[in-house]
Amino acid sequence: MAESASSATSMLKDELDIVIPTIRNLDFLEMWRPFFQPYHLIIVQDGDPSKTIKVPEGFDYELYNRNDINRILGPRANCISFKDSACRCFGYMVSKKKYIFTIDDDCFVASDPSGKPINALGQHIKNLLCPSTPFFFNTLYDPYRDGADFVRGYPFSLREGVPTAVSHGLWLNIPDYDAPTQLVKPLERNTRFVDAVLTIPKGTLFPMCGMNLAFDRDLIGPAMYFGLMGDGQPIGRYDDMWAGWCVKVICDHLGLGVKTGLPYIYHSKASNPFVNLRKEYKGIFWQEDIIPFFQQVVLPKDCTTVQKCYIELAKQVKDKLSKVDPYFDKLADAMVTWIEAWDDLNPAGAPAKLPNGKA
Amino acid sequence: MAESASSATSMLKDELDIVIPTIRNLDFLEMWRPFFQPYHLIIVQDGDPSKTIKVPEGFDYELYNRNDINRILGPRANCISFKDSACRCFGYMVSKKKYIFTIDDDCFVASDPSGKPINALGQHIKNLLCPSTPFFFNTLYDPYRDGADFVRGYPFSLREGVPTAVSHGLWLNIPDYDAPTQLVKPLERNTRFVDAVLTIPKGTLFPMCGMNLAFDRDLIGPAMYFGLMGDGQPIGRYDDMWAGWCVKVICDHLGLGVKTGLPYIYHSKASNPFVNLRKEYKGIFWQEDIIPFFQQVVLPKDCTTVQKCYIELAKQVKDKLSKVDPYFDKLADAMVTWIEAWDDLNPAGAPAKLPNGKA
Repeated sequence: MAESASSATSMLKDELDIVIPTIRNLDFLEMWRPFFQPYHLIIVQDGDPSKTIKVPEGFDYELYNRNDINRILGPRANCISFKDSACRCFGYMVSKKKYIFTIDDDCFVASDPSGKPINALGQHIKNLLCPSTPFFFNTLYDPYRDGADFVRGYPFSLREGVPTAVSHGLWLNIPDYDAPTQLVKPLERNTRFVDAVLTIPKGTLFPMCGMNLAFDRDLIGPAMYFGLMGDGQPIGRYDDMWAGWCVKVICDHLGLGVKTGLPYIYHSKASNPFVNLRKEYKGIFWQEDIIPFFQQVVLPKDCTTVQKCYIELAKQVKDKLSKVDPYFDKLADAMVTWIEAWDDLNPAGAPAKLPNGKA
Repeated sequence: MAESASSATSMLKDELDIVIPTIRNLDFLEMWRPFFQPYHLIIVQDGDPSKTIKVPEGFDYELYNRNDINRILGPRANCISFKDSACRCFGYMVSKKKYIFTIDDDCFVASDPSGKPINALGQHIKNLLCPSTPFFFNTLYDPYRDGADFVRGYPFSLREGVPTAVSHGLWLNIPDYDAPTQLVKPLERNTRFVDAVLTIPKGTLFPMCGMNLAFDRDLIGPAMYFGLMGDGQPIGRYDDMWAGWCVKVICDHLGLGVKTGLPYIYHSKASNPFVNLRKEYKGIFWQEDIIPFFQQVVLPKDCTTVQKCYIELAKQVKDKLSKVDPYFDKLADAMVTWIEAWDDLNPAGAPAKLPNGKA
């Protein structure tokens, strides 16, 4: 179930970047060293750019602070959030690799029930390299895992699956709760190790958490925009949710898969629920309109690339969500800016190639 | 995770029947005694009615053989399959209880990873008594379980959930594979204990297995028809699948939930893959048309009861699937006969009451 560190060193070493948003020294990398050291890190420093972030020796990394972001993107830098971990998506944009793994700096190596350390990155890679099954539910979960398969009654025409664009991992110890739930259940810890990976069915939205997340940048990268959060914005802690909703409707439209479940990381420290409540409270209202909006989004057939889908989505956000709050008007503009910036930095790869040769 | 036998004795004792289709003596009940003895059993004897089925002492049961079915249903008995475990649905019809648990006689008590025997029935009852969440995916699985909750980004308006109509349990040891998969992987055993219960999202179909299944008869009973299989029919081993597809589209229409995952039973003996292939092969072709049919089914708003939904579904089956094979014409007629027979035997409870007072 967990990969050994040695076998991980050979998995996609030159095709994957690890993106870490941070405001502090990256001591947490020490624990991840056996798993992460073979990979290249993209560190996105949030907050005061004059502060020095220490990275443990032996890691191969590039680091971007706010000054770098402003210099590289110019006026378009306003689409990248400041004083919010949403800034991490800048790392997705400057990467040149096919795969991205992003992790928070308060996430540590978890253990499986046998006590063995879990190679989260190794499991994400497995998830991304094997297909998804969004069109019909398999009751034994991921049919491509060792010891599992498609069960009786699963149509044979669907057993080839579709390419997996996203691998969403989970968290032991501190669960990813909203502020009200944190306030009501301050002592709740997630101790349940669910030994499953599953495809989120087509047409179903999910709350995508950015703490422990991997994706295929070529397949879905331009949709992994973490929105406008933090400094100067009326909302926080919805960056990954926003990305997740956009990503899911685009994956559904393009026939790509989203997996959730394994791997677990150990989430060490709950963020302050009072601070979180301040960041979240508008989102708690807004999501009651946002979810129905995304549930009814239809993308036209001529949206054959992620970029085209995303620009169309921005248009629909402006049309339908601006009446909820003027914030969405600004967000829709930022979504367009993001795509412009993405295409500028990724001229050869834009639009991204789909495996079926489309676009 | 597993319930103790003693606490199970108090759970819905007078509101649940256990339905067992069989052709042999029910020795397998010995192992289930601590869990099943408090409950009433409905045994549906398949095949030769002159054969005597022995039931271990101490169980409270009623037994129906083919002669009983013919006597009770008269000409309508032709909707109940013969020489196929699909006959079990007769037991659903004659029950007067709110809940049904049905299990195959080659299913034994499984153990959880700590070695503790799993009270499958106790877990099914838990599943049925707590709500489902079909409108949005919760990444920590069933949010109502101890130690779990709704994660950040889950809309608060959806946290009440909807009533659960079906609890679909799984199998350790012999997985529920179709004949081709059995032939290709004769030695595969399911050893993975996935400690999760989850709601199958609205709009997603799944392969419902009848081996280890519980449901709320008041909420969904009339849709739990296991079709025409076995003797005189061109197909077998699609009885539970058919029921599952019908049940799922009706649950989606009526706002009811379907859960899958825990509990596990231990499935002892693989059925003969060659015999299975003969029974299944038409189904393997047909399901390629059946699944798209069910994926596009829309039930009109005035279908406010399970019976009305089911009659409408029968009409659509006749209209759209008869061209696949004349069998579906016969099946559609049998679906109507089933509802007539159900309403005859359940006059007071027809139409079933929905918890929201509809119908």
